[in-house]
Amino acid sequence: MSAIEDLVAELAKLPGIGRKTAQRLTFHLLKQPEDAARRLADAIRGVRARVVTCGTCGNLGDEDPCPICQDPRRDAELLCVVEEAGDVTAIERAGRYRGRYHVLGGRLSPLDGVGPDALHVERLVARVLNGGGGGGAGAGGKEVIVATNPSMEGEVTATYLQQVLKPTGVRVTRIARGLPVGGDLEYADGVTIAQALAARRDMTESD
Amino acid sequence: MSAIEDLVAELAKLPGIGRKTAQRLTFHLLKQPEDAARRLADAIRGVRARVVTCGTCGNLGDEDPCPICQDPRRDAELLCVVEEAGDVTAIERAGRYRGRYHVLGGRLSPLDGVGPDALHVERLVARVLNGGGGGGAGAGGKEVIVATNPSMEGEVTATYLQQVLKPTGVRVTRIARGLPVGGDLEYADGVTIAQALAARRDMTESD
Repeated sequence: MSAIEDLVAELAKLPGIGRKTAQRLTFHLLKQPEDAARRLADAIRGVRARVVTCGTCGNLGDEDPCPICQDPRRDAELLCVVEEAGDVTAIERAGRYRGRYHVLGGRLSPLDGVGPDALHVERLVARVLNGGGGGGAGAGGKEVIVATNPSMEGEVTATYLQQVLKPTGVRVTRIARGLPVGGDLEYADGVTIAQALAARRDMTESD
Repeated sequence: MSAIEDLVAELAKLPGIGRKTAQRLTFHLLKQPEDAARRLADAIRGVRARVVTCGTCGNLGDEDPCPICQDPRRDAELLCVVEEAGDVTAIERAGRYRGRYHVLGGRLSPLDGVGPDALHVERLVARVLNGGGGGGAGAGGKEVIVATNPSMEGEVTATYLQQVLKPTGVRVTRIARGLPVGGDLEYADGVTIAQALAARRDMTESD
């Protein structure tokens, strides 16, 4: 296999990258200064060599515990449960959340053979009982926000978590589903519109 | 910068890859076996280290001259002129062309400061005069198919090539423009429809 075919094949293995895009990227890298390609190769190697999983929340980063778990200004009694580490990045990008996270490492998916044991649920229950941070005085968490994806499997996972967390007495909430901001009613699917109607709120002057 | 941010930044420099896609790809690579990320990094390094430009046609590959220029079964008197090496791959994928190529290395673009001198035009004229292959008996090429892109700049480049090649007496043709196969009239732009109408052909039983 030639060097070009080799890189096209490797790039085409990435999600959402087809053969044509892989080819376009390969020729782009060939046109760039050699330095640019080297930096990309180094970054790919570096991400595997340097990134560790946070032993507390399951987030990925350069440190364990991760910067969010280490940050004393983040509320340790407020936990946001997400499916994957990438979801933490998405929520952090929004810049509004001031609690900590718990990464499940997936979602319940019986068809793919992913049951409760494959997810970090026990550790979540332990964190809630210990007051979120893991080093708490057993005060119990204040609230668990379930932010699994608004998909079929994400909903099943959310319902499961609600049941598992019930005995702890913690408040369990679910992120709102509705029309995306900047979206268009005309292009929204029926299920989303139905959920947006059902979850409607009274308008106040502060809205 | 963390290893994750570093890779996201490098990936986001690639054409057509925004910040969100770069993040998705990064977390994908973190979930894959370490081996997969290593193979991709090696392929990126390899493509820069191993790939050379063919001194005859300007194509990119592991050898100079490239396999197409070396292939005695490919018609050396039929040249297809393309803007970039990636276009060679696209035409080869179609599997119909049996001549050789000439890669210009770009297209005329006065706004970007790309004039005739920046393209491999002189070498094209020399190949045509020498019978295409470079090692010919000065018989002159049979035909030059101009396959620059059907964009404004590609058309300007095609017209320029036609003028430059006129003194050689070679037949200069242009690839057809029209509706893409599998396309939909409803979604085609007006210019394409106009060209498809103007270039209409009489239907025969073999069509």
